[in-house]
This record gives sequence, C-alpha cells and structure tokens, in this order.
Amino acid sequence: MISFRKELWFHTEKRREFINITNQVNACIKESNVLEGLVLVNAMHITASVFINDDEPGLHHDFERFLEKLAPEKPYSQYEHNGYEDNADSHIKRQIMGREVVCAITKGKLDFGTWERIFYGEFDGMRDKRVLVKIIGE
Amino acid sequence: MISFRKELWFHTEKRREFINITNQVNACIKESNVLEGLVLVNAMHITASVFINDDEPGLHHDFERFLEKLAPEKPYSQYEHNGYEDNADSHIKRQIMGREVVCAITKGKLDFGTWERIFYGEFDGMRDKRVLVKIIGE
Amino acid sequence: MISFRKELWFHTEKRREFINITNQVNACIKESNVLEGLVLVNAMHITASVFINDDEPGLHHDFERFLEKLAPEKPYSQYEHNGYEDNADSHIKRQIMGREVVCAITKGKLDFGTWERIFYGEFDGMRDKRVLVKIIGE
Repeated sequence: MISFRKELWFHTEKRREFINITNQVNACIKESNVLEGLVLVNAMHITASVFINDDEPGLHHDFERFLEKLAPEKPYSQYEHNGYEDNADSHIKRQIMGREVVCAITKGKLDFGTWERIFYGEFDGMRDKRVLVKIIGE
Repeated sequence: MISFRKELWFHTEKRREFINITNQVNACIKESNVLEGLVLVNAMHITASVFINDDEPGLHHDFERFLEKLAPEKPYSQYEHNGYEDNADSHIKRQIMGREVVCAITKGKLDFGTWERIFYGEFDGMRDKRVLVKIIGE
Repeated sequence: MISFRKELWFHTEKRREFINITNQVNACIKESNVLEGLVLVNAMHITASVFINDDEPGLHHDFERFLEKLAPEKPYSQYEHNGYEDNADSHIKRQIMGREVVCAITKGKLDFGTWERIFYGEFDGMRDKRVLVKIIGE
C-alpha cells in the first residue's frame, strides 16, 4: 500500500471565496504514483469546506446567497459563539457545505463525472489556512 | 489490496426521486471479493446525491418539502445560475443532502446499523445519470 | 493491509446532545497499530451524526438553534413521517450535520488541524445508540 500526504495552503482576499482545486488534487495523485485507491481532501480548519460542484460563477453567487440566508454573518450578536470571535456564521456555513470529499482514483486519475470539480470553500478568510490531501492505494 | 469499480445507471421519471440502492451496493461488494475494506458510493453528477437514511415514504415526503422550502425550484429567475439552465435548485439540494457516502465492509458485507439504507437522490432527473461504486480492501 | 473495527456506545440524557469523541477515536487508532491510513467514523443510526467542528459550548448552542429553526421538533404533526414515531426532525437534522467523517491517519495519529474535534451528534437520544470506527491502512 502506498500512502501520500500533502498540504495545500490558501490566503483569500475576501472573507468568503470558492477556489477550484481540482488541478492541485490531480497533481497530488500523479506525484503519489497511486493508480487505484482513494483520495481524501479535507479542510484542516473548522470554518472552511471542501466540496464538489460546478465551476460556474452564477451558481457560486447562488450558494453565497443561500448560505447568507440560512446563517447570516451579521449581526454578530445573534450568535452565542461570537464575542471574542465573530465567525459563528462561518462554522455553520462550513457545516452545510461539508468538511471533506473522498474520491476514487482509477488508472492514476480522479474518477470523475463530466462536471465534477473540487472546491475549497472559505468562510472566514484573509489569513493562512490549509487543506489536507491524503491518498492511499497501490 | 483489491480495488473494484462499477457504475450504476439511473433514469428517473420525475425531476426529483429517491431510490434505495443498498442491494446494488451489496452486490458490488460480493462481486469484489473484498472482506475487509471501504466502499465509496458517489454521484458522478453535481445535481444528485448519495446519502444514507430511512426507507420510509413519509420521511421522503418530509425531505422533499424541507428541500423545496430551503431551495425552491421555482421561480427559476431567482437564481443567477439559471438562464440557459434551470437547475440551480438541484445543485443546492444536492449540496444539502451530500455527494457521497463511505461505508465500512466487514466480513464481506456492508457494516450497517439496523435501519441504514443507501439512497440515490435525484434532483434533476428524466435523463441518464450514474453513480460510482469504488471499493478498496482485502 | 490492517483493518480494525470498534463500536462506541452512547446513551444521552437529553433528546439532543453533542459529545466530543476525539479521544476515543485516537484510542482506536492506537489500538489498531495503523501508522498510515484512513479512519471512517459513522453513526450507525439514521437520527444521529458524526461531524467535525469546534468544542465550544456557545457554538453548540448556535448549532442547536440553527437546526431547530430549519427543522423544528414540534409540532410533531407537521411531518408525514410522524405518527407512530415522533422523530422526523431528527432524521432531517442528522442529514444537515452529516452521517460520517473520514480522517487521515499519519504517523499513527489523527492528522488534524489545530481546532478539529470529532463529535457524536445525537438528535433522538435517551436510548442506546452506537458509532462505528473502521480503520484501514498499514
């Protein structure tokens, strides 16, 4: 069994951003030399997500509006978690969008449908944060 | 290490449907000859889900109502993603219900609690779509 | 390849509770002797979750309020699933928070960010329920 580990680092300009990391994950798979196996991609922070959906700016706008409706950033005082911190909404948004994805590796590549793309979802950005890529297989 | 891959195909009659695929996943495990390992079951489309819950029609009705309340299909014009397409709500519904499940295989079977069943959740159907089953183990 | 399996049992005092199970999962990893691999931690019940977030009581209060707003427990009659049962809201809450987490094992330990903690999320408690820990690796 081969195992492979790599951290991807991000520092967004805005509090909330979606970043397509599919190519970076594929590069990890290539570097790992795994032909058949699984790749786990997870946020290492609890105010960020890794998820799979469409690389379409209109949809990302719809996600932002949907998440802000469910768990609005402001007023900060509406959340018990806030006080010293102001990111309760980010914890909730991350929970809706998910922490991680697990994907199949087949013949040395992400085994994906036509439109599947992996995203880093940042909900409390403007600082260094990271994603873990862990691969096991042969 | 053994690896196994199979696609399951679906073509629903309605835009939204929930289909119990537990038996199909168990058949894949049997075919793989894996006794101990993990099975990944994921939608290969970004407007569909794979999730685990109860095989009870009343609950499925409750899920439908819950999802329609959070991300209504209509009016289509409420979403930036729509225009050429009309399925922004399907992308959001899939995100709430999840893309994939990872399950344990123990002694050659799904290692499940009493009421766990795997479902394909279709949110933009009436066309050919598929689910990936990937198994690794020994 | 090593595989390891253990059930963790819970019996909460209240209908809804969040319990930090990170130490129990780490103990499983140690017991498994796996140095590099993946650990799957999943609820074996369809009215409970396993998720990763912050061990902060204020945030847990915010999660409770958020989930009760999206899928209120009462009135029970609002759900088709209820009648003989009264836990439709628990099925929906579990769906929002997720069934399972998959985590990397690196050098014999959970490969976690600073604040990541694993929680058992109970939404229909006051009875015996269990979580599955399945580990594969080397």
